[in-house]
Amino acid sequence: MSPLDLDRDPAWLSREELDQARERLPILYVDAVPVRVDDRGEVTHVGILLRIDDGGTVCRELVGGRVLHHERVRDALMRHLEKDLGPVALPRVPVAPQPFTVAEYFPTPGVTPFHDPRQHAVSLAYVVPVAGDCAPQNDALDLTWLTPDEALDPGVQAEMDRGHGVLLRQALAHLGHPV
Amino acid sequence: MSPLDLDRDPAWLSREELDQARERLPILYVDAVPVRVDDRGEVTHVGILLRIDDGGTVCRELVGGRVLHHERVRDALMRHLEKDLGPVALPRVPVAPQPFTVAEYFPTPGVTPFHDPRQHAVSLAYVVPVAGDCAPQNDALDLTWLTPDEALDPGVQAEMDRGHGVLLRQALAHLGHPV
Amino acid sequence: MSPLDLDRDPAWLSREELDQARERLPILYVDAVPVRVDDRGEVTHVGILLRIDDGGTVCRELVGGRVLHHERVRDALMRHLEKDLGPVALPRVPVAPQPFTVAEYFPTPGVTPFHDPRQHAVSLAYVVPVAGDCAPQNDALDLTWLTPDEALDPGVQAEMDRGHGVLLRQALAHLGHPV
Amino acid sequence: MSPLDLDRDPAWLSREELDQARERLPILYVDAVPVRVDDRGEVTHVGILLRIDDGGTVCRELVGGRVLHHERVRDALMRHLEKDLGPVALPRVPVAPQPFTVAEYFPTPGVTPFHDPRQHAVSLAYVVPVAGDCAPQNDALDLTWLTPDEALDPGVQAEMDRGHGVLLRQALAHLGHPV
Repeated sequence: MSPLDLDRDPAWLSREELDQARERLPILYVDAVPVRVDDRGEVTHVGILLRIDDGGTVCRELVGGRVLHHERVRDALMRHLEKDLGPVALPRVPVAPQPFTVAEYFPTPGVTPFHDPRQHAVSLAYVVPVAGDCAPQNDALDLTWLTPDEALDPGVQAEMDRGHGVLLRQALAHLGHPV
Repeated sequence: MSPLDLDRDPAWLSREELDQARERLPILYVDAVPVRVDDRGEVTHVGILLRIDDGGTVCRELVGGRVLHHERVRDALMRHLEKDLGPVALPRVPVAPQPFTVAEYFPTPGVTPFHDPRQHAVSLAYVVPVAGDCAPQNDALDLTWLTPDEALDPGVQAEMDRGHGVLLRQALAHLGHPV
Repeated sequence: MSPLDLDRDPAWLSREELDQARERLPILYVDAVPVRVDDRGEVTHVGILLRIDDGGTVCRELVGGRVLHHERVRDALMRHLEKDLGPVALPRVPVAPQPFTVAEYFPTPGVTPFHDPRQHAVSLAYVVPVAGDCAPQNDALDLTWLTPDEALDPGVQAEMDRGHGVLLRQALAHLGHPV
Repeated sequence: MSPLDLDRDPAWLSREELDQARERLPILYVDAVPVRVDDRGEVTHVGILLRIDDGGTVCRELVGGRVLHHERVRDALMRHLEKDLGPVALPRVPVAPQPFTVAEYFPTPGVTPFHDPRQHAVSLAYVVPVAGDCAPQNDALDLTWLTPDEALDPGVQAEMDRGHGVLLRQALAHLGHPV
């Protein structure tokens, strides 16, 4: 079921209603930084999606999306991870609700490091180890696994907009990696 | 400015629009556990509000409320603390955005320990030391400062509905207190 | 290699040297709350060890022990989990170094909720999902998997000394469970 | 009382005993990132000490030091903050024991981003707002308050050794600052 289908479901918002809500309320999001870990739990790779944005530009981004009405935060995380990484990614959603940070996306650039031209979104951000096979889904062109050092490369960071580069660096700092 | 005034502001939602949104979207909240600390930062007292609920029953609750459109999470915390504790409470809002937990209030009881009959609300929960003079505002009858042990008393807990007793105990556990 | 062997290794402390250090320095520990999780990452069971203490009394406790010289915290976690749960427990050590709490065990009871008659120990506490087969090792008689509600039973709590009952409740609170 | 005096106190370790312990046990430390905050709790400045190291080189570092036998972690934080910033710095030690990270300093460079040639030290790291007047004490030449952006300047970072530059960046990331 694509995000569009979800929005068409009568239990949730129509596209028009969502547009109206976006002008009036902060929208709750989750962001996930998918990682590969070794046997000791140390992160070896970070998964980054490659997409074509609305303007036709290639960009890299993390996994994430809206939390729906009546949906648990952990179910929203599972849904977006499966939507973006495929049904056999086997994400290990964190056991505790405490996120490593909260990213506040403002429609006006510069209020915070995070920016979303469509809306004011507030996102609970988690690092999520994935153990299974991942395959980019929907509108993602590709999924790249980079080492933490590769992910910090300025070239990679420059291709991440909306502040996803900052969020990735904050995640790596939280993991104990030098940033 | 009371919460009602805010809701009347054209920049935010009308009461009717808010009611519609509440049926369709999770609403972003903040919860604050106000505390008094000693010189070493150890919590000595927890502040609990006494209110009359819509049905006329006396109940105890924590500080909290909605995050508004275009409002930073820390500004929402400040606004609700000042709204409930008065303008000279001098709250020390946490320096970092990471909450100690995320409380998911469902309109259906039993989905989580948190319940809100009006809506699906997702709340970022913080412990906030307050250094100034506090005076209950608006519809709060009183503000009581209890020691952590007093706050854990089953009688006190029984007067906290919507799961606020659970959230208080989770906060005390996070503070290192035996619960 | 048993903990005794490690202490005999010249790279580490002799029993006598360890005893001397214990009288003079806080000793660094790790505590792990082993858990079983479902596909969505929700905790279904907590693992508790059954031991005979030095006085011959049966007691329940969490996994844990010293961090050795030159040992990474995550390796100490792995070592103690494998030592207590067996070599195929497949623990998923957390990706980030941030513990959910720090437990300070004092030789004098009452300073904190945590007590260790042998020493002043400071412990980094983590919740660790285990995915494999667990079998009690060494001096543990048994390993019991309890639901969170069963683990909160006063009878179970009464059998956990040194404050492990408090630590378990703090862990469950961190996981979002009502305590 | 200087750190040397403390080490001479019979309740603690002699210098010789400390040297022996350092070869055999991880030593428990605390690190504090002192910050100035505005009324909303947002960090405006970070405090960095200027010292002359043993080799006569000027270097910048964060506040920190050993946790002593029988000392609470929050008391160790208070003691080191007062030792380095003076008696009227009025540090607001965090209410909860959960550190934002754990820094593992190894005597061998490269094991982690943190390095201490004298010992294997494991440090609980906290961000601590200070509200009073600060004056460098003991062997510190100066205390500089830098904005987060100034603190991230490569020149400043280059003067921070033992990984303190990394720890500062991890702290700023935890605070929601772009790093």
